[in-house]
Amino acid sequence: MALPDVTKDTQGSGLTSVNPDLASERLTASFCVPRLTAVLDGGAERTRVRRVVVDVIESDPVFSRENQYFQSQNERYEAAVRKAVHVRKKMQEMGWSEDGPESVYVYRALSGDVAFLLHRVFMRSISVLGSDKQVAKWIPLASEYQLIGSYAQTELGHGTYLQGLETTAVFDISTQEFILNTPTISAMKWWPGDMGRSATHTVVFAQLYIHGKCYGVHPFIVQIRSLQDHSLCPGVIAGDIGPKMNFEHIDNGYLMLKNVRIPRENMLNKFCEVQPDGTYIRRGSQKINYFTMTSVRISLIADEVILPLMKACTIAIRYSVVRRQSKLKPGEEEAKILDYQTQQEKLLPQLAAAYAFHFINNYLHELFNRGYREIQGRNFDSLPELHAFSSGFKAMVSQYCTSGVEICLRACGGHGYSLLSGLPSLYTKILASCIYEGENTILLLQTARFLIKCFTAASAGQPVPPSVTYLAATKPGKCPAKDKLDFLSPDIYTEAYQHAAIRLISSTAAKLQDLIQSGVERHEAWNQCTVQLVQAAKAHCHYITVKNFVETVEKLENTAGIQNIMKRLCDLFALHGIFSNAGVFLHDGYITGAQMDMVTASFLDLLGIIRKDAVPLVDAFDFTDKNLNSALGSYDGQVYQRLYEWAQKAPTNKQISPAYEKYLKPLLHNKLSKL
Amino acid sequence: MALPDVTKDTQGSGLTSVNPDLASERLTASFCVPRLTAVLDGGAERTRVRRVVVDVIESDPVFSRENQYFQSQNERYEAAVRKAVHVRKKMQEMGWSEDGPESVYVYRALSGDVAFLLHRVFMRSISVLGSDKQVAKWIPLASEYQLIGSYAQTELGHGTYLQGLETTAVFDISTQEFILNTPTISAMKWWPGDMGRSATHTVVFAQLYIHGKCYGVHPFIVQIRSLQDHSLCPGVIAGDIGPKMNFEHIDNGYLMLKNVRIPRENMLNKFCEVQPDGTYIRRGSQKINYFTMTSVRISLIADEVILPLMKACTIAIRYSVVRRQSKLKPGEEEAKILDYQTQQEKLLPQLAAAYAFHFINNYLHELFNRGYREIQGRNFDSLPELHAFSSGFKAMVSQYCTSGVEICLRACGGHGYSLLSGLPSLYTKILASCIYEGENTILLLQTARFLIKCFTAASAGQPVPPSVTYLAATKPGKCPAKDKLDFLSPDIYTEAYQHAAIRLISSTAAKLQDLIQSGVERHEAWNQCTVQLVQAAKAHCHYITVKNFVETVEKLENTAGIQNIMKRLCDLFALHGIFSNAGVFLHDGYITGAQMDMVTASFLDLLGIIRKDAVPLVDAFDFTDKNLNSALGSYDGQVYQRLYEWAQKAPTNKQISPAYEKYLKPLLHNKLSKL
Repeated sequence: MALPDVTKDTQGSGLTSVNPDLASERLTASFCVPRLTAVLDGGAERTRVRRVVVDVIESDPVFSRENQYFQSQNERYEAAVRKAVHVRKKMQEMGWSEDGPESVYVYRALSGDVAFLLHRVFMRSISVLGSDKQVAKWIPLASEYQLIGSYAQTELGHGTYLQGLETTAVFDISTQEFILNTPTISAMKWWPGDMGRSATHTVVFAQLYIHGKCYGVHPFIVQIRSLQDHSLCPGVIAGDIGPKMNFEHIDNGYLMLKNVRIPRENMLNKFCEVQPDGTYIRRGSQKINYFTMTSVRISLIADEVILPLMKACTIAIRYSVVRRQSKLKPGEEEAKILDYQTQQEKLLPQLAAAYAFHFINNYLHELFNRGYREIQGRNFDSLPELHAFSSGFKAMVSQYCTSGVEICLRACGGHGYSLLSGLPSLYTKILASCIYEGENTILLLQTARFLIKCFTAASAGQPVPPSVTYLAATKPGKCPAKDKLDFLSPDIYTEAYQHAAIRLISSTAAKLQDLIQSGVERHEAWNQCTVQLVQAAKAHCHYITVKNFVETVEKLENTAGIQNIMKRLCDLFALHGIFSNAGVFLHDGYITGAQMDMVTASFLDLLGIIRKDAVPLVDAFDFTDKNLNSALGSYDGQVYQRLYEWAQKAPTNKQISPAYEKYLKPLLHNKLSKL
Repeated sequence: MALPDVTKDTQGSGLTSVNPDLASERLTASFCVPRLTAVLDGGAERTRVRRVVVDVIESDPVFSRENQYFQSQNERYEAAVRKAVHVRKKMQEMGWSEDGPESVYVYRALSGDVAFLLHRVFMRSISVLGSDKQVAKWIPLASEYQLIGSYAQTELGHGTYLQGLETTAVFDISTQEFILNTPTISAMKWWPGDMGRSATHTVVFAQLYIHGKCYGVHPFIVQIRSLQDHSLCPGVIAGDIGPKMNFEHIDNGYLMLKNVRIPRENMLNKFCEVQPDGTYIRRGSQKINYFTMTSVRISLIADEVILPLMKACTIAIRYSVVRRQSKLKPGEEEAKILDYQTQQEKLLPQLAAAYAFHFINNYLHELFNRGYREIQGRNFDSLPELHAFSSGFKAMVSQYCTSGVEICLRACGGHGYSLLSGLPSLYTKILASCIYEGENTILLLQTARFLIKCFTAASAGQPVPPSVTYLAATKPGKCPAKDKLDFLSPDIYTEAYQHAAIRLISSTAAKLQDLIQSGVERHEAWNQCTVQLVQAAKAHCHYITVKNFVETVEKLENTAGIQNIMKRLCDLFALHGIFSNAGVFLHDGYITGAQMDMVTASFLDLLGIIRKDAVPLVDAFDFTDKNLNSALGSYDGQVYQRLYEWAQKAPTNKQISPAYEKYLKPLLHNKLSKL
């Protein structure tokens, strides 16, 4: 039979020919693809560095993800530990430092499929919260992997509300030790990565008690496993929390402590200390802790949220020009599914969003870096704004991108549902980003609290941070657009977004005020407004994202057609947002029904325009086939051959199931081999 | 250590005490829970039958799902085959027939986790499409499992567009055989259940050729594996398509045929026949095939779509009264998370939707049964309406419920993300319902085509089916509501939904007409309207769902408080739909901004009201703990204990990972056991 020989090695240098339907899409790009890649990377030099890193990682078989979709949780974990140990060696060999430009690309090239990320958080928390002496003791050991650290904050019964943590650390003056305990089952530490099977040490957050008085939550370094044989230390019960929707490679763990004693020196004591006589001393600002959370939220957006959406778009869009189904015109050949308006409407707004969020991520990093410089100069003024931004954008971007990945998955029909498409694992992983590092609804409410405060201040003529001065602006009540082309003007749609954000914030502030004035208690009034506060916070983030996209496009060079195509993507992102949240804009008549029809018309027109460049726009993300790890999304578009070849490697095809002998054979008609 | 002893056997008769926070929710139900259960079951007698079936199934260890979350694809498959063989035996023992009232409950009690569902489709297709002689030959063999059948329609390159199938069946007069071939890789059969490892036979859909002329797609019975040793027949290549997002227990397969010869008698020939001399004869109506698809779509809605949402609501709502987090009021204890407005806004509309869809499912079954009776009387008039309804509701309900399950999952935070919560597998399974048996967008476009046709007919004064006579109605241009209480009037909101559906259908019909009149070709014009056509079809289905919910509530007895609580759920479903699709209602000013504020106020008020009955409302679904298989959702609310106990059973805790010896031990500091 000739069929199975159609393709060659699909993971290696591989297939020779590009599917002609996909190839033809690349002939007509309206812009220079490598130029756009360089813009996305932040310069051609960084593209070069990235590609070097990718080559180094992908050419090493230890880092292969070829069998990932067939592996059990145990196998994934073992591979991730192996990779973590190997990558350290590799980086040393290459002379790449943890702080160097290569580091971020190493993690990306591994697609995050590596152990000991919490070991890094362990190190970071000691660096930030530990005294010089503590840093000097622990960091070198950790850097060399002479111990494996974890970070035990979340408990079975408490996630976001840290004050509620139940683990206790009681100071025993007589022995100069802290005695750590898990008083109830809900106090068990639950979820910390690297803790279920790997960690020898962890930073435990516990309520500090001295002489029976509680001083609140503090961090303590606790050894949990022997360094000699990896057995659990006395009084420690720990293990793996079992299967999850993704992250099979990570040993998220549980931990119970029963009268575990640690020396006084193991409380991280840069900002607070318990002296030998039990005196509690607090020094310096606690606000810097705040900043650590802010930094984590901002740092995860690119790799854990935006990149997965970019990958999903790449897979779904390439597949949608290879897949042909049904006919657009009777008598013609079957059409590429990307030529159907409904398919464009599913995928192209996600593509535009991936670009929009890439640019807002740059903006957040600038804001963060500026804030960091101020903090180094002991100026903490920007912290509330940074906190509000990191919270709101983490929530808004992760929610949007998660839904975007799901849309891409569904848009690939049955084949998208196969793990071999790569889309299910992108989805199940990005979904977690809506939950970890602050549940999204709670984060949006923190942003809303900041916005309400700023709105009140701005209304009273007091100064507010630059990003929210717009709240003070009085705006015209009507959108001036006269025909559908007017909605391709960034001023028109940016104003509309601004107007909507102000309206939602001001109307919710008014409702809150009314409730309080009518005698409802403040906390209860707040709770009664939270559904609308979440809407308001989202509208603010959406507005800033559109505004930033517009400003980014203005700054782009127009050579190579890049400014032009980015302008269209920006228009699409903005109009799709108005189209799909029409009620927000129609509510007070700022946009009329007739204008909404213009928005719809312009939005649908843009789909047809961007469709032409869809493949070059995902090619510009510059993912390798190994990085995508998708039978549907490879550069050559040999979709069906890859699905077939990869399926054959599945364990279900390597074992004759005992089910036949045990259950079927006794039943099946077996007098004749053939009926 | 005392902690691990807190609970007893959690899968068996189990825990003795109900969590007090959950228990207190059950004391204040405004209605009689068993009475509502009986309403949902369609009578107390059916509740009794259901419970007998559930008891029988759940007390048999073969059907246990206890280790499901820890099993590999191979293990799941083996268990599913074992269950399929055992359930047949069990039903014989109990005297339950396939057509009896118990049958549907058996499948539900197994949570669909059983093999050979496609074997049933194999049998159904022979019953419907086969001649009496074929039925007499094959059905007895299949009923006894003397062969295992599958149904091979979908190909690697073709799903929804059946005319595009590439497999060929060429009639060879000299031998009186059909020669089946897979001419290209994309022609490979791909996805059929039970085919990858189990089936001995399958119904293959292939293009029929006689004397070089193509007669279109026809069904053929093909043996693919030996009945003696289960080896593949000559010319057959088949296997498993590998890992998917769910359905690990099903051996979805691939199949290639190379000159496979089958006797002339193996073409299913009730409606078409090839005579010995090659003469092709068509007889009877093809429309009945149509009806089979309709019947499958309607039959899957209850078990595969609505039940998963009911389960997800049960899990998330029970968990949300056990989970306490943060404080609503300073100084008080931490609040149940269901007391936060944002949590109510996530979960309670899903609960209302589960009820709304349960009732629309009843409506669809009545419609279907009426249509079936007509068809038996050779009256095919209702087929277009039935097709439009089954397509549109399959799409709308599966989309809504999939998103509802995802909301429930996310609303449980980190613990929802654990497989042990039961929510991830509910989500990954229900997601497939958006794709299989017709991709949702394509189905909605079929409904839209029917609606446009009916709208045009109604506008011209021609008769249309009763369900769409509303399209002819001229409606007042404004919603008459004056305050928020008016929006609790079913007339007010039903009219609003009707108005919105008519507006979307008529405006899209007008756009289509305009495009065609301006010279755009008909197919191209259709494509340019598809985004809006999909909206229109959804609006129609949403309207019918609301209307049917209202009518159902009217017919309910008001004893035991049931009508009252159902009325409130109906209000919530309707107002949530207006609140979250505000643009649709504001667009032409039918509802004004001020009225939308009333909708919002009433909607938020309802959340607080229904919150009080939330737990009794999910208790009424009457799922057993074994059926839910969720550490978060059990009746007793012992959430944390179960998570802990179940996690310990994970394979990750049963094996000392080789990763330690291989990769960690060489690195770890091991001169001292303790640092």
